[in-house]
Amino acid sequence: MLRLKRGDDVIVFNGQGLAFEATVQHAKKDTADVLLGARHAAAPEPRVAITLVQAVLKSDKMDDVVRDAVMLGVAAVQPIVATRSEVTLASLARGGRKERWERIAVSSAKQCGRAVVPAILDPEPFGAVASMVDRRQLPGPALMLVEPNAGAEVVSLNELDAQAPKEASVLVGPEGGWTPAEIASGSERCRLITLGGRTIRGDAMALVAVASLFTKWGEY
Amino acid sequence: MLRLKRGDDVIVFNGQGLAFEATVQHAKKDTADVLLGARHAAAPEPRVAITLVQAVLKSDKMDDVVRDAVMLGVAAVQPIVATRSEVTLASLARGGRKERWERIAVSSAKQCGRAVVPAILDPEPFGAVASMVDRRQLPGPALMLVEPNAGAEVVSLNELDAQAPKEASVLVGPEGGWTPAEIASGSERCRLITLGGRTIRGDAMALVAVASLFTKWGEY
Repeated sequence: MLRLKRGDDVIVFNGQGLAFEATVQHAKKDTADVLLGARHAAAPEPRVAITLVQAVLKSDKMDDVVRDAVMLGVAAVQPIVATRSEVTLASLARGGRKERWERIAVSSAKQCGRAVVPAILDPEPFGAVASMVDRRQLPGPALMLVEPNAGAEVVSLNELDAQAPKEASVLVGPEGGWTPAEIASGSERCRLITLGGRTIRGDAMALVAVASLFTKWGEY
Repeated sequence: MLRLKRGDDVIVFNGQGLAFEATVQHAKKDTADVLLGARHAAAPEPRVAITLVQAVLKSDKMDDVVRDAVMLGVAAVQPIVATRSEVTLASLARGGRKERWERIAVSSAKQCGRAVVPAILDPEPFGAVASMVDRRQLPGPALMLVEPNAGAEVVSLNELDAQAPKEASVLVGPEGGWTPAEIASGSERCRLITLGGRTIRGDAMALVAVASLFTKWGEY
């Protein structure tokens, strides 16, 4: 634990876009009084607000994905339990996993200089995705990452509209991939997209997909 | 260790683009005779041959970068010892690190379905980069990843020519970043490029940069 003392310079942020330089006035065991100074220039937020819809991966892999997605600049993370996710909603709740991902999101936002902490949404079963897209709880366009051979409707990023949307959802599957039923169901609400012919590991896919979409949409 | 026995079906590949289906005829302790069958369709190689020039990171981080870069499809990895790399060429040699990265490259190529194993080049000091670019030992264009505030010449991917080159080199710094002297030296031979305003961790930068350049150049 970092021990603060009177006179230390810190940056304080509210997680919703405001950050200030500040100086510690009194530091106690669990709290500190600070004197706010000038507005601090935080890292800019991406122009496209991407919600990462990530099928829950094995414990530490999912932690890494949350950390990396926040670092790149996603606006929110929607964890979903897919058929091949090796967890249940009940075990996620019992393990306090959402709260853990929230702590990781705060810590990653600090490290990469963002003043906005992305929301970690309540984990949902895959079956809830369709209605979330319909209710615009997941912003469109919704893009579902699949293998190149997943069907006739699969397109590459080259075939997507280059015009950047204001927001988008990106669905990334679990280590074992989506089931054919999930792809069939997903294709009714989402564009099926693929990234090249080489197999990308499940726990690297979110980072590769978000970086690629940001590039496609002119963020880099 | 995977124990093969007579009759097992395997894929054999020479690491240079050829892969065949095969059946084990005799398996001994260290060798096996196989009967070659049909040519196996390996994952396609990217159209742009990228050499990743990666400043050596801490031990396991560098292993991860080699694994991930091979997975995405780089053509070669050139490890370099930068000022802020916390290693020396002598310690890399003593630790057999190049051989270790070669084994990781073979294993990652297998996992992602590539029949080509990228070359791991001999580690070099940062000072050798200029002459390697001049001698085209590092293919051009050479692109050096830097922070947005690293100087007036820094461009975003939007400002790069969209026309895909046949090959390119991408220079990624160590955890602590390039020194100002390295950026000044690099800028004589390389375009200085940057990826958005949020700080990307050193060990994630190669994956993000290669994915973004592949997108820029129409690979995805």
